[in-house]
Amino acid sequence: MQNFTSVKDAYNIQNLVNEALLMKKTPYADKHIGKNRTLGLLFFNSSLRTRLSTQKAAQNLGMEVMIMNVGADSWQLEMNEGVIMNGDKAEHISEAAAVVGSYCDIVGVRSFPGLVDRELDYSEQVLNQFLKYTGRPFLSLESATRHPLQSLTDLITINEFKTVERPKVVLTWAPHVKALPQCVPNSFSEWMNRADVDFTIAHPKGYELAPEFAGNAKICYDPKEAYEGADFIYAKNWSSYQDYGKILSSDPAWMVDAAKMSLTNNAKFMHCLPVRRNLVVADEVIDSPNSIVIQQAGNRVWAAQAVLKEMILTLMRTESPYLF
Amino acid sequence: MQNFTSVKDAYNIQNLVNEALLMKKTPYADKHIGKNRTLGLLFFNSSLRTRLSTQKAAQNLGMEVMIMNVGADSWQLEMNEGVIMNGDKAEHISEAAAVVGSYCDIVGVRSFPGLVDRELDYSEQVLNQFLKYTGRPFLSLESATRHPLQSLTDLITINEFKTVERPKVVLTWAPHVKALPQCVPNSFSEWMNRADVDFTIAHPKGYELAPEFAGNAKICYDPKEAYEGADFIYAKNWSSYQDYGKILSSDPAWMVDAAKMSLTNNAKFMHCLPVRRNLVVADEVIDSPNSIVIQQAGNRVWAAQAVLKEMILTLMRTESPYLF
Amino acid sequence: MQNFTSVKDAYNIQNLVNEALLMKKTPYADKHIGKNRTLGLLFFNSSLRTRLSTQKAAQNLGMEVMIMNVGADSWQLEMNEGVIMNGDKAEHISEAAAVVGSYCDIVGVRSFPGLVDRELDYSEQVLNQFLKYTGRPFLSLESATRHPLQSLTDLITINEFKTVERPKVVLTWAPHVKALPQCVPNSFSEWMNRADVDFTIAHPKGYELAPEFAGNAKICYDPKEAYEGADFIYAKNWSSYQDYGKILSSDPAWMVDAAKMSLTNNAKFMHCLPVRRNLVVADEVIDSPNSIVIQQAGNRVWAAQAVLKEMILTLMRTESPYLF
Repeated sequence: MQNFTSVKDAYNIQNLVNEALLMKKTPYADKHIGKNRTLGLLFFNSSLRTRLSTQKAAQNLGMEVMIMNVGADSWQLEMNEGVIMNGDKAEHISEAAAVVGSYCDIVGVRSFPGLVDRELDYSEQVLNQFLKYTGRPFLSLESATRHPLQSLTDLITINEFKTVERPKVVLTWAPHVKALPQCVPNSFSEWMNRADVDFTIAHPKGYELAPEFAGNAKICYDPKEAYEGADFIYAKNWSSYQDYGKILSSDPAWMVDAAKMSLTNNAKFMHCLPVRRNLVVADEVIDSPNSIVIQQAGNRVWAAQAVLKEMILTLMRTESPYLF
Repeated sequence: MQNFTSVKDAYNIQNLVNEALLMKKTPYADKHIGKNRTLGLLFFNSSLRTRLSTQKAAQNLGMEVMIMNVGADSWQLEMNEGVIMNGDKAEHISEAAAVVGSYCDIVGVRSFPGLVDRELDYSEQVLNQFLKYTGRPFLSLESATRHPLQSLTDLITINEFKTVERPKVVLTWAPHVKALPQCVPNSFSEWMNRADVDFTIAHPKGYELAPEFAGNAKICYDPKEAYEGADFIYAKNWSSYQDYGKILSSDPAWMVDAAKMSLTNNAKFMHCLPVRRNLVVADEVIDSPNSIVIQQAGNRVWAAQAVLKEMILTLMRTESPYLF
Repeated sequence: MQNFTSVKDAYNIQNLVNEALLMKKTPYADKHIGKNRTLGLLFFNSSLRTRLSTQKAAQNLGMEVMIMNVGADSWQLEMNEGVIMNGDKAEHISEAAAVVGSYCDIVGVRSFPGLVDRELDYSEQVLNQFLKYTGRPFLSLESATRHPLQSLTDLITINEFKTVERPKVVLTWAPHVKALPQCVPNSFSEWMNRADVDFTIAHPKGYELAPEFAGNAKICYDPKEAYEGADFIYAKNWSSYQDYGKILSSDPAWMVDAAKMSLTNNAKFMHCLPVRRNLVVADEVIDSPNSIVIQQAGNRVWAAQAVLKEMILTLMRTESPYLF
């Protein structure tokens, strides 16, 4: 695996899941693999799970980690080509990315969408500029339209907790006070569409995901109908893709509560976190034994570790093609 | 030692002091103990000594350290239970603490009091929520009412510098321009009341500490009287506990100066730092040979290292009960 | 080498260059040297290259690194002596520096000039206060008037890329929208004046560097004349030293472009970065094969590593004088 920016970078998603679950049992077995390797993590946006779990995963592989908050620790970056840089951005991405690449073996970047210009966000400008200029294996820590480390984590967690061969997985929209990116639902759909699950997306009208992400998922506009027989309820708010970045509904009927959970096949409750309690999900659900959000967040380490190991192995093969 | 949040967590304070002083002589003797262990440090507030000394202590024990500024690096946290999270706080402490706990072997947190609501501050809400939800050994890096790593450091330093068997230790209030927490004086009192010292607290009327902290200390409202025969003058400003969070005095007669120091038994001058010069203490005192504030701050490493070692040993015993 | 604050601290600059170029070939050969040594890096200002490359260099030597953003992570520092600290600065440099020194084996600090009071800036107050109080080997990460790690990097890069025995090196001023420090040009001049190069400084009138930095460099007020026959064009904006901190010109004729580059001896283009594209340098130049800005930035690691190694060796000799 050279880069990790979407499900397309995973050669075989089930192998990756198995590798991660193996690592969970023997976290330090590959501590020699990352020796004298440095992972650089750049954050344009806040992070708790991604920051800590990726750092922990790299340390488990024996890597050094360097973390930088772009803008706060360093300089504001210009992303556009050909401009006269006489504004407030002191450095161009082409230099910044190449320089960071020259100090690191693998570079990870988190950069959220602006939610104003859909074409710009869905062009994945920041991600693509880093891919173009870093000159190193690139790890997405969440980009404008995807959050693949989260989605791999979700698949690992579903594999761990499923009680039937082919579970019914429901991604349900839920209300929120802020306009949030579509990254997590986009990415989750992309992965579920390739996994051995029965996949439904439930949301109010107007919240349809971009077709390239929704894929062949069943779409359901009625939460009750969607919950019926579900094995996993995965809740997440997102803002509209069609009426881009807008909040179209705050209907509390979409909050995950015990009444709707009772319609499921004793479903597990999942969420990528952070989650707004009693807005996205009622305390009674997230505090119930069926909630696996903490175990899910814990699996972020093993997802990142499996991906980083694959990336290092690819790097080694590139550096020493006759050794493998 | 499972957690370290107050003097009550120390089984035997003199043993802890001895362990720390031994570590000062052989800092790397226990470098194997922390192998593959991660210490997570979360800061809600600024830190220099605590941040660097705890990090250094953990590294001396071979641990990995992950540091996060809550709010700046990650999300604002909701501390209250049962609320509808539709404000500016994106994540609940119950998830955040449990997730951080899932990435770390020991979790340290610094969170200052608000100094507005005494009952809330003295309930130690943040500390207790972390204790409740982290699911890991917990290390206080200063909470709303205590700073136990500082107090252990202070006791170590007094042991190092005392010239009589049972020294007279004076904690003296001093003026300041800002309303400061009672954490350091509270905690210092708690530890001194259990140590083999003759302990006096001196302050203007209205600055009485909470009775559970002041304990059996002699209280003195006259600085000159307090200084007489003292072996250690420990200065610190704090805001009023009674008239909660208020500044009741800025009387310069309480600043530590050479005239008052001359009344002592050639006393050493101590302060936890940071200190406002010529407000809390005159240059002539803090720059004198009797000032041991730098040595005191240096001892923060050994206090943290002794505590972390005890916590790791307890963790090992829990994990492998038949090995010990 | 006890400290590294200017070219004067380098016993022999050519040896240092050779050491750095050797390290570039075998980055981990000295990994044992930094064992159980801690490097503390304090940033009063933003940093990307310096932060990451110095961290990487230290890790290559086996050191632990602790990084702190002064003001954001910790407290505002008072730099002046004898003041009554009743303002917004919570800690005096004399305590902060000594305390950081007590936790670290080597201390690095970045602190830019204010560009308001020339005498204050050129007195190097912050640097000198750290030198006075830290009590440890001190590494400048850029001070008010110099950036020696950058200049050593520049000399390494010129050695790597030169095609003639004694190249013509031109430092050229270029326009900018903000008033920038003189650190990089000052320091570059200081190093070039001691290196085996033919050195010219080109700038509009009024941009003369302080005589102690310009030294014996040829001064040229006409960019075209300066470029003729040059082997290296080193571009940098700076504000006026004479009319201190002021922007006297924004003449686009001083931007580095292909037309002027064509007057050179196929010169390499250098800049310390971050650089404003199409203001300081045209895309056509920085994107051309003759631009070596990324390689130059990459060399920051080897410059820092060579300097840190020298500092550690000096430290070892001090600690164990009979071993060497």
